[in-house]
Amino acid sequence: MRSRKISFAFLFGFGDPLPSNYTYLSGFSGHGILVVPSNSSPFLAVPLMEAEKARECMKNTGINCKVIPAKNKLMDEVRKRVRGRIIGIDKGALTLDLFERAKKIFKKARFEDIGVDIYRLRSVKNNEEKKDIARACAISDDILRLCIKRFMNFRTEKDVADFLEGETRKRGCSLSFPTIIASGSGASQPHYSPKDIRLRKGFCIIDFGVRFNGYCSDTTRTVFIGNPTTKEQELYAKVLAAQEESIKSCAPGKKCSEIMSICTEKLGYLKKYFIHGLGHGVGTEIHEFPSLNTGSSDTLQEGMVFTIEPGIYFSGKTGIRIEDTLFMGKTPEILTKIPKDLLTIEKTRA
Amino acid sequence: MRSRKISFAFLFGFGDPLPSNYTYLSGFSGHGILVVPSNSSPFLAVPLMEAEKARECMKNTGINCKVIPAKNKLMDEVRKRVRGRIIGIDKGALTLDLFERAKKIFKKARFEDIGVDIYRLRSVKNNEEKKDIARACAISDDILRLCIKRFMNFRTEKDVADFLEGETRKRGCSLSFPTIIASGSGASQPHYSPKDIRLRKGFCIIDFGVRFNGYCSDTTRTVFIGNPTTKEQELYAKVLAAQEESIKSCAPGKKCSEIMSICTEKLGYLKKYFIHGLGHGVGTEIHEFPSLNTGSSDTLQEGMVFTIEPGIYFSGKTGIRIEDTLFMGKTPEILTKIPKDLLTIEKTRA
Repeated sequence: MRSRKISFAFLFGFGDPLPSNYTYLSGFSGHGILVVPSNSSPFLAVPLMEAEKARECMKNTGINCKVIPAKNKLMDEVRKRVRGRIIGIDKGALTLDLFERAKKIFKKARFEDIGVDIYRLRSVKNNEEKKDIARACAISDDILRLCIKRFMNFRTEKDVADFLEGETRKRGCSLSFPTIIASGSGASQPHYSPKDIRLRKGFCIIDFGVRFNGYCSDTTRTVFIGNPTTKEQELYAKVLAAQEESIKSCAPGKKCSEIMSICTEKLGYLKKYFIHGLGHGVGTEIHEFPSLNTGSSDTLQEGMVFTIEPGIYFSGKTGIRIEDTLFMGKTPEILTKIPKDLLTIEKTRA
Repeated sequence: MRSRKISFAFLFGFGDPLPSNYTYLSGFSGHGILVVPSNSSPFLAVPLMEAEKARECMKNTGINCKVIPAKNKLMDEVRKRVRGRIIGIDKGALTLDLFERAKKIFKKARFEDIGVDIYRLRSVKNNEEKKDIARACAISDDILRLCIKRFMNFRTEKDVADFLEGETRKRGCSLSFPTIIASGSGASQPHYSPKDIRLRKGFCIIDFGVRFNGYCSDTTRTVFIGNPTTKEQELYAKVLAAQEESIKSCAPGKKCSEIMSICTEKLGYLKKYFIHGLGHGVGTEIHEFPSLNTGSSDTLQEGMVFTIEPGIYFSGKTGIRIEDTLFMGKTPEILTKIPKDLLTIEKTRA
């Protein structure tokens, strides 16, 4: 922050969910404003109704907590406690109505985005963070193994999703995003929502992740219900080869857009069916930095955790996606270890 | 919109969760931009990866869907399809980074907030919406009854929360917000998170809601673990009397700030322990318009659904909150029907 001469930064903790840069830096899951002056200690301004929760939390984080009795005066009170004209804000999280209020209170200020900087900071994980994500991946591996073992017993897409969620809760975790179970033509929609309909024959995409101690995992496997044709097996093998090639090409210092190119090249004539990005950072949020996409300016660094998830989609017909969560060490380390060979599931009633 | 001479409005459907005004008006739960010109039909601009999901959804809503192959060109493509300089946006949902991009593309535009107008529109529910909320309330009543019946079997705060969530899922619903189970001194924190600790003696606040067909319920009951003193019974009776008086005073045309005053007056010397608003609208979001608070400019209207939830909090000691979800008909109709007499729970091991 000092290099950019920012006097102080504030991060608003309002909305549902609370902005992740706010909860990440404050360690607080209640309403408030986190203020980070460049020359003094950070503090958290909270309304009266959050006072006790904030004090309890601050015992662990050591961040000072200032209770503001009048909730609608929070920003005015912050104004009295800071100096300087160049203010850092999180433009990706700050809504326009709050920004307009801030502009009225900090009349002569110049506002600079620090949201991207915080995201970049978060993209490199420390040991504790890596451990939590690895644990989330191990738990989801365990659940997915169980799910695939019992797959022939499920009747509907929703049954599968419910099973995964139930097992997640049994292990004291929560989902990191709504599970996707996309069978039949549903598999042609990357963001399909599972329905209360019988599992259809063909490729079935299972996209699932759990949250352990706040940190997410993200895995996709595609199984086949029924007997795949040679052509279908080939399509699957193509996507798998592209995924493995992409993973192999990950290295610290490598441009994310380059990994994307390696993937599309490997997909060959299938690349026109690959209609989304190759991957995204994973942390306390399911979508973080870096972005592995054509237009991305991000570069891989040691300590990053991200997904590699090529997919191909044939409109109204079918789709295939294979996704792992990786840790970028000196070489790529795959944290989601469930096998990737095409698994076929015989369903007598499917 | 025409009265304010807005040429067209656009609502961004990005972020997690998607902005509720966008999902409410578009009926679509994927990424895109909903464009509402004042003189022609609305349309939804979506990236390629959402195309099929959008088309499927649009069959029901009748809103036209335009697929934009290049995801990062979505706004440019919208630009080509609209005319006029006065643009309606949702300032409460639009983040500053997206707004700055919009300003670059719509160079000479003037931007006006329409978010508040949409929230006002949403605050008056139609029959279908009322039915869904009433159903959510009935389901949560049913679950809460069961929970209270079995209360002596629960060991920890988390056990109670898990039970409520499990029963919610059994009924095909989801939670409308993270359940609060606040026993002992935890009850002094309005936004307490249930812990994996043994239920403590004294008041225990249970704040719980379910979502049925997208619509929320919101109920709080305070039970007593152990034997309340006369003083404690009196405190409870005071809060209950204030809650009932507030409900009775609800009528179409009444100012929300006035209902708040009636409540604080009824609380008498306890009003300084009442550290939050009296209530909020409920719909597809748990916090909607109107706002029943001191500074609110909202007025009650027939068809509104909102909560009445006075509470008192004694820092580090205890707390009491009683909350119902109401429908504003010609007179107030309480949708959450579980009894409000102080329930005492004897726990041999508490």
